[in-house]
Amino acid sequence: LTDKDIEYFKSILAPSAVSQDEEDLEAFNIDWLQKYRGQSKLVLKPSTTEQVSKILKYCNDNRLGVVPQGGNTGLVGGGVPVFDEIIISTVNMNSIRSFDAVSGALVCDAGCILEVLDNYLAERGYIMPLDLGAKGSCHIGGNVATNAGGLRLLRYGSLHGTVLGLEVILPDGTILNNLSTLRKDNTGYDLKQLFIGSEGTLGIVTGVSILAPKRSKAVNVALLGLSNFDQVQAAFKRSKDELSEILSAFEFFDEASIGLVKKHLVAGRNDPLESPHPFYVLIETSGSNKDHDSEKLNNFLEGLLTDDIVQNGVVAQDTTQFKNLWAIREGIPEACSKAGSVYKYDLSIPVPMFYQMVEDMRARLDKEGVLGEDKDVSCVAGFGHIGDGNLHLNITAKSYSEKVTNIIEPYVYEWTAKHAGSISSEHGLGVFKSPYLHYSKSPSMIQLMRKIKDMIDPNGIMNPYKYLP
Amino acid sequence: LTDKDIEYFKSILAPSAVSQDEEDLEAFNIDWLQKYRGQSKLVLKPSTTEQVSKILKYCNDNRLGVVPQGGNTGLVGGGVPVFDEIIISTVNMNSIRSFDAVSGALVCDAGCILEVLDNYLAERGYIMPLDLGAKGSCHIGGNVATNAGGLRLLRYGSLHGTVLGLEVILPDGTILNNLSTLRKDNTGYDLKQLFIGSEGTLGIVTGVSILAPKRSKAVNVALLGLSNFDQVQAAFKRSKDELSEILSAFEFFDEASIGLVKKHLVAGRNDPLESPHPFYVLIETSGSNKDHDSEKLNNFLEGLLTDDIVQNGVVAQDTTQFKNLWAIREGIPEACSKAGSVYKYDLSIPVPMFYQMVEDMRARLDKEGVLGEDKDVSCVAGFGHIGDGNLHLNITAKSYSEKVTNIIEPYVYEWTAKHAGSISSEHGLGVFKSPYLHYSKSPSMIQLMRKIKDMIDPNGIMNPYKYLP
Repeated sequence: LTDKDIEYFKSILAPSAVSQDEEDLEAFNIDWLQKYRGQSKLVLKPSTTEQVSKILKYCNDNRLGVVPQGGNTGLVGGGVPVFDEIIISTVNMNSIRSFDAVSGALVCDAGCILEVLDNYLAERGYIMPLDLGAKGSCHIGGNVATNAGGLRLLRYGSLHGTVLGLEVILPDGTILNNLSTLRKDNTGYDLKQLFIGSEGTLGIVTGVSILAPKRSKAVNVALLGLSNFDQVQAAFKRSKDELSEILSAFEFFDEASIGLVKKHLVAGRNDPLESPHPFYVLIETSGSNKDHDSEKLNNFLEGLLTDDIVQNGVVAQDTTQFKNLWAIREGIPEACSKAGSVYKYDLSIPVPMFYQMVEDMRARLDKEGVLGEDKDVSCVAGFGHIGDGNLHLNITAKSYSEKVTNIIEPYVYEWTAKHAGSISSEHGLGVFKSPYLHYSKSPSMIQLMRKIKDMIDPNGIMNPYKYLP
Repeated sequence: LTDKDIEYFKSILAPSAVSQDEEDLEAFNIDWLQKYRGQSKLVLKPSTTEQVSKILKYCNDNRLGVVPQGGNTGLVGGGVPVFDEIIISTVNMNSIRSFDAVSGALVCDAGCILEVLDNYLAERGYIMPLDLGAKGSCHIGGNVATNAGGLRLLRYGSLHGTVLGLEVILPDGTILNNLSTLRKDNTGYDLKQLFIGSEGTLGIVTGVSILAPKRSKAVNVALLGLSNFDQVQAAFKRSKDELSEILSAFEFFDEASIGLVKKHLVAGRNDPLESPHPFYVLIETSGSNKDHDSEKLNNFLEGLLTDDIVQNGVVAQDTTQFKNLWAIREGIPEACSKAGSVYKYDLSIPVPMFYQMVEDMRARLDKEGVLGEDKDVSCVAGFGHIGDGNLHLNITAKSYSEKVTNIIEPYVYEWTAKHAGSISSEHGLGVFKSPYLHYSKSPSMIQLMRKIKDMIDPNGIMNPYKYLP
């Protein structure tokens, strides 16, 4: 990075958009888990598509590595530099470009914050098709680049289905304008799909067109306590039958998870089910008729109680209780962080084997003598999206250590591969999981990925040292 | 094509799977509209993935062009040869490989017929997420390769969202095995997306993993008669609000369309609304509770009648009437074919401009003096999927002629591009629309598509002379 480079960036960007200030850089260099830290000396904060195009063209011509960064809420070190790559932040790209109240097509800049978009849509009777714990900070461009999953995927599907179009800057500065608002378009390869989940290794997403569903008039939440994982599975099967089209979330957590929330968060001060249960399920319904939905939910819950599938349950009676129940589920990652350094694994596992992973991991850590209140590992918590087969396995430790890491890895990946799962369900690869890609993808698949990467980014400037092994 | 080539194919395939018989070839050389005809001298009918791999490797090594063909129900000449390409038919690949009754993941061979799969799932309480008129003949592999849309897209989304994994043979014979049954998997570029809608230009789909939704216990159908297109739009907006999560189809056709059905098909012998209306809407609801759904539908219909948005309507009272109402809508393409040679256009158009296209086309043909019962063009019919913004414009003529073609094209594409639509909503490009791709995609998008094609199929053996201009 030379003075000449800085001069160029200053010539195309506003003065405040070119920062070399160490204090300013700190927040961009380190991820929120404080697990990954880079040494970038420059962050650029463009506010237009054309500026991003000029930046990338210059970096490509001069072989300067870049890291695109949204809200910096990623969990695999994908959004922070590994060495001294230039950080390109979308923080100044936050305009809503258009919204069609008939079709629900929303077009916006990549730097719009997910929660801001959801609030914007709420006023217009629509809802973002995705929701996640980091909604208050994460950028929609980052969501798209990482193919974020989250809490509404069960109902509205993945971004591969809901994103209508993208505006992407290729490494050579080419602006790929495909901000279509059409629901269907079969004219050629669906190029936008390549960039969804590419984690900034092929280009920078600068604009997003996404299909927002109608916001439901009636939303209900229930929290259930269950004795074993077979009951969790039985409840899930029934919910697909009986709640069917109004089911909008089927979330799961274990006793260890709620224990951490109770210990560390305000949200956990009052246990809504009073006494503890080995397993918890949070069910949300969303529909257009409150009476119909309540009837379906009540019948469903009564059936579960009658057939001894759940031991206890509560249905939120007002908005406050609704928020409190969700706060317990959404608070788990934060509660884990407060308990120490967190080893986070994000796995897709066929539902029947889902919880076996957690139990096997506990047994392994115990056998190695590191699990216990005063030991290296204090807690193994399992939670996640049963409806999507997505387990979050969080292991809280005194600190990140080679000793503990070597007990967990590659065991966790081998176990997942053996059960035909995925080593990254929704968090992505980043710098954390790229060495383990072969556990989920065959050599010929990885080879084709590499060919695509080399074709689109021949100089390897986009988010280097990550994603592909 | 030499004797040596034939010898090779006979050495790896069953005798009946290598056909040079002219009569047999006839059905594979011509599309069902009888608009496109090739002169292939050889059709291969492999029954295993390995056979397809060997065929492609041989063809690639020897620079022999191939056309993958499923049920041969395409509408743009994408599935038949242009010259003498070797036809590779999936007709002998029709096994269901697995079905998971908890998750709904179905894995099957590419040659399985859509209706066969849907019937298989019906017995298990599930439903295919797509449905189309050609369901009795089309292959799921062809559906995926052409990103088929159809009647259930409004509810269950596109194949980009519902396909979980694919097994694809690349031109060099590489087997890309990604038959995942996981709902979520963020490990690398989502390669399967490249092949969905690639129309056999990048490889041959041999296996499909797809997420089947639960089959709804209650399904209702209503047919409405309306006076003008503003009413159609008003009814659509209301249906999104009031039927919301149970809405599973919002189909539309005009008086010209039902006129053709009445004239040419058994299904049209009894008009369910008795007197003709300028516009018709077919609404389907699917839900888990018959009483709830009927209440929602009845309230919705009463509101439409009270507010004078619809003039007449009928709700199917039994299975026979249910099938009859659908038969009218699904019979339109066949009725058009019986009226003569059909110019078929499949356009995505923003809903407010949706029907203007039909009216402008009629005016244009009339002005040119070719529209009328005894003239070149007998009828201009508009129908399609309002919920997806997908208009099917069918123009029936005495025969395909340059004169009529030149009046319609490129006018129809220019009009669509001017209104930010897509020149192919669900039918694809094939040989028909590839010259017009620039009306819907920018030069930089087309350039990137070309680079992808050249990278994966450097010898250009896959479905040549089609898709990209």
